[in-house]
Amino acid sequence: MEIEIYDTTLRDGTQAEDFAFSAEDKVRIALKLDDLGVHYIEGGWPGSNPKDACFFREIRNYHVKNARITAFGATHHPGTTASADANLKALLAAKTETVAIFGKTWTVHVKDALHTTLERNLSLISDSVSFLRQNEKTVIYDAEHFFDGFKADPEYSLSTLARAIEAGASRIVLCDTTGGSLLGSVRDTIESVKNRFPGVPLGIHAHNDSDLAVAISLLAVEMGATHVQGTINGIGERCGNANLCSIIANLCLKMGFECLSPESLSRLRHVSRFILELANVPSNKYQPFVGRSAFAHKGGVHISAVEKNPSTYEHVNPRAVGNKRRILVSDLSGRAAITRKAEEFGLRLSKSDPVAMQVLEELKGLENQGFQFEAAEASFELLVNRAMGRGKKYFDLVGFRVIDQKQDEGNEPVAEATILIRVGGQLEHTAALGNGPVNALDNALRKSLEKFYPELKDMELSDYKVRVLPGTPGTSAKVRVLIESHDSRDSWGTVGVSTDIIEASWQALVDSINYKMYRVERERESAQEAKRS
Amino acid sequence: MEIEIYDTTLRDGTQAEDFAFSAEDKVRIALKLDDLGVHYIEGGWPGSNPKDACFFREIRNYHVKNARITAFGATHHPGTTASADANLKALLAAKTETVAIFGKTWTVHVKDALHTTLERNLSLISDSVSFLRQNEKTVIYDAEHFFDGFKADPEYSLSTLARAIEAGASRIVLCDTTGGSLLGSVRDTIESVKNRFPGVPLGIHAHNDSDLAVAISLLAVEMGATHVQGTINGIGERCGNANLCSIIANLCLKMGFECLSPESLSRLRHVSRFILELANVPSNKYQPFVGRSAFAHKGGVHISAVEKNPSTYEHVNPRAVGNKRRILVSDLSGRAAITRKAEEFGLRLSKSDPVAMQVLEELKGLENQGFQFEAAEASFELLVNRAMGRGKKYFDLVGFRVIDQKQDEGNEPVAEATILIRVGGQLEHTAALGNGPVNALDNALRKSLEKFYPELKDMELSDYKVRVLPGTPGTSAKVRVLIESHDSRDSWGTVGVSTDIIEASWQALVDSINYKMYRVERERESAQEAKRS
Repeated sequence: MEIEIYDTTLRDGTQAEDFAFSAEDKVRIALKLDDLGVHYIEGGWPGSNPKDACFFREIRNYHVKNARITAFGATHHPGTTASADANLKALLAAKTETVAIFGKTWTVHVKDALHTTLERNLSLISDSVSFLRQNEKTVIYDAEHFFDGFKADPEYSLSTLARAIEAGASRIVLCDTTGGSLLGSVRDTIESVKNRFPGVPLGIHAHNDSDLAVAISLLAVEMGATHVQGTINGIGERCGNANLCSIIANLCLKMGFECLSPESLSRLRHVSRFILELANVPSNKYQPFVGRSAFAHKGGVHISAVEKNPSTYEHVNPRAVGNKRRILVSDLSGRAAITRKAEEFGLRLSKSDPVAMQVLEELKGLENQGFQFEAAEASFELLVNRAMGRGKKYFDLVGFRVIDQKQDEGNEPVAEATILIRVGGQLEHTAALGNGPVNALDNALRKSLEKFYPELKDMELSDYKVRVLPGTPGTSAKVRVLIESHDSRDSWGTVGVSTDIIEASWQALVDSINYKMYRVERERESAQEAKRS
Repeated sequence: MEIEIYDTTLRDGTQAEDFAFSAEDKVRIALKLDDLGVHYIEGGWPGSNPKDACFFREIRNYHVKNARITAFGATHHPGTTASADANLKALLAAKTETVAIFGKTWTVHVKDALHTTLERNLSLISDSVSFLRQNEKTVIYDAEHFFDGFKADPEYSLSTLARAIEAGASRIVLCDTTGGSLLGSVRDTIESVKNRFPGVPLGIHAHNDSDLAVAISLLAVEMGATHVQGTINGIGERCGNANLCSIIANLCLKMGFECLSPESLSRLRHVSRFILELANVPSNKYQPFVGRSAFAHKGGVHISAVEKNPSTYEHVNPRAVGNKRRILVSDLSGRAAITRKAEEFGLRLSKSDPVAMQVLEELKGLENQGFQFEAAEASFELLVNRAMGRGKKYFDLVGFRVIDQKQDEGNEPVAEATILIRVGGQLEHTAALGNGPVNALDNALRKSLEKFYPELKDMELSDYKVRVLPGTPGTSAKVRVLIESHDSRDSWGTVGVSTDIIEASWQALVDSINYKMYRVERERESAQEAKRS
């Protein structure tokens, strides 16, 4: 059986704290979602803000292959008629074939939020749906607060659905708007709706306030719902909406429903990351199916078991959703993990290779010092290269001096770094300021190297993390610095450890630059090879 | 009915990528969990690493009020006997009343991971549980991979449980180790276990790979399980374990089970944050119940509705879990917002009090800059003192200079700080080395002050944490430094924020010293008063 996926990332998703998309971003996301193969894309509420109205104008310039772009709105205002209502007019102006409108089903809301009578609310629903049908729209009806409404007054809430159905709504979507419902009450409520309206296509729209949004959505499908609303990564107001990444993966990979093609499904992780990148919000690495850690194995027992038989610790094949297994290199892992990891970088090592042994020994030593390579794969790759005798140096440090000076209590300190390096036979002596000592050193190092390696201009630091390691107390503790860098094509992590934060930062900075140069050279070589052949 | 909460944050939680706790951190967390009122605290796997063994030695020095500290291990190795098994010996050496051991239930694992026969595995279970019972331990039996095992071979998996029960296990915990199970199969499996073993106390241990861990845990409780395993914030290997924050809140607030007292429940958010702070991992603001956005309202319609009637968009009272409603508006000014902010810091203020007004204005400004006072109560107390005109200065800074100098690549840098301060009318000019620039400054400051205030010799820094704040990328980002100090009687936290890590550390150091001196003087005063009276 086919299940319709209704994506509301662009409407309900943008209610999330820290999430905001420009109209152009929304278009890019819509095209990406269409490419993924969702069935509906709720683009926004054109009656509520001009940005959303702009999206509907813009998206008409693009070829949308699979999805029905859908405009969202409310039943008409109690003080007017459907045909005179500004919000319904804006819905028509969005020029989508399909529209979704929500109506009130909970008596408390009819009185306290809509300030009208229960009877009047019923005619708002009838008239609004009828009006949209007369204008040849396919209407999806969202029964807002349905589960709370049903608990408060089952008969009334069912009568609101009856009005929407009679007026010609194509789908009835049961919404858990406050996200507070539990599975038992959802089950009973859906049962009642099915008994009252046999054969009517039902949908589900859940929020995650009880941490149950995915479970509620899947339960509804098991009970016969054929339409699921949610957002990519579960973004949305408060704790978010039902997470479509989890729902789609469970439906396709475990429950045997038709939903997305296997080929589309393998783009799930990419779409998840794409949306977070556009929103400039960090990803949740522990997110089921698509998170960076979702198939990451740390314990030695798990690693060896999963290598022999993936199903021992992996519930699905990571590749099915575009993810991959990660072996977290730590001193808990053995030589097998090292050779696996080397393979990831395209380096072929056999377990008995003395290089593997050397890397493992070095790794253990470094981890004892507090190094960690889980998030610093570039530093690890450089380490393997060095062990294989392929480590190239792009510069030598003669020395640096960083000065941080504060005059009087009210003033910010001034940070200055001087650095002397040697590239080839040439000495380069430079100084730079910064808004702190590490930033000053970073500035000075780049300044001195860009002259020799203009490719470094293309590279930026995107994240800088400091972690104080347990052990020695207070300010004499060791710190671990993790740096994430990126250029126009890629991003990579490096690490440094010292009791001196400047030294730790220096190590990570140097690795970051070395890795960039190593990649530049490797690409240059393969381009030349391609030319020759 | 009472439901037992079994917390495994310290064991399964530390399998999460990026989570690692020192033995001292583990003790602090255990005491915090005990204070929260969980029934069991799984402290670690003493047979697998020395750090965990150290935790069990350490925790015996503390008074644990409510929880049973529990050591974790496996059934004995197939190649030996229970009494000769190193892992079971380590369990006994942990000296806890209660122990948890896991055994294999899935035929695939018995063969592929344990490399033994199905029959031998059954005797491993019997013998291990019996051995621990003979040593007077209460035994919790974790049936690893139970749901997968039941699917593969129902009869065999049930027979493993039978052995554990016959040998005297007090609880049988059904584990969804790969986290891949769906609700339907969990329901059927638990039904079969109940039918086969009526009256046996059952527990549930779920992982979140399908995004269903909380739902599965609650379903098990609905079906009669009385013991729930999980971790605070749902941390754990891959996508994490079942999130106890969500489970506890749902059980207590919605499902009517006895679990934690309302007073304990109101500390839930605090405990959630505390653990993330110790791990130095950013919190997930969208986390149900305890996340910063969990009760944050953005849409205008929602805000006005929720102010009139909270139940319209809030499924529970945020205060019940120690959280609060947040209104996301660009400008938080206005009386209501100010008093709300005051409550957050436990200040009882009349709206007209000018001191209160000043404190709150300053707080708002500092929080916007990235300060956070949750773990820096000493800095907060000093701030209030200053606003009340009671802020005493113990010294003035004329200036400091910190130099970090590195010669050649192989050498560690040398860090030196010079400092000029004024105490009373007297100038003091001093220099000190350190194993990093912050440590050098710390050393110089103490050296110059101890001459005037010998009480400072009694004080030490016990913890130093650095967090890079989101905003500017790379090494120019702002950092927040949290320092914890202690003397023979007490410990206190202070905070500093700057783009310059030395400046941020300086602020926290100065607060730490000022707080110590303020406390010394207050004690002196009350001693004198006591003498006079």
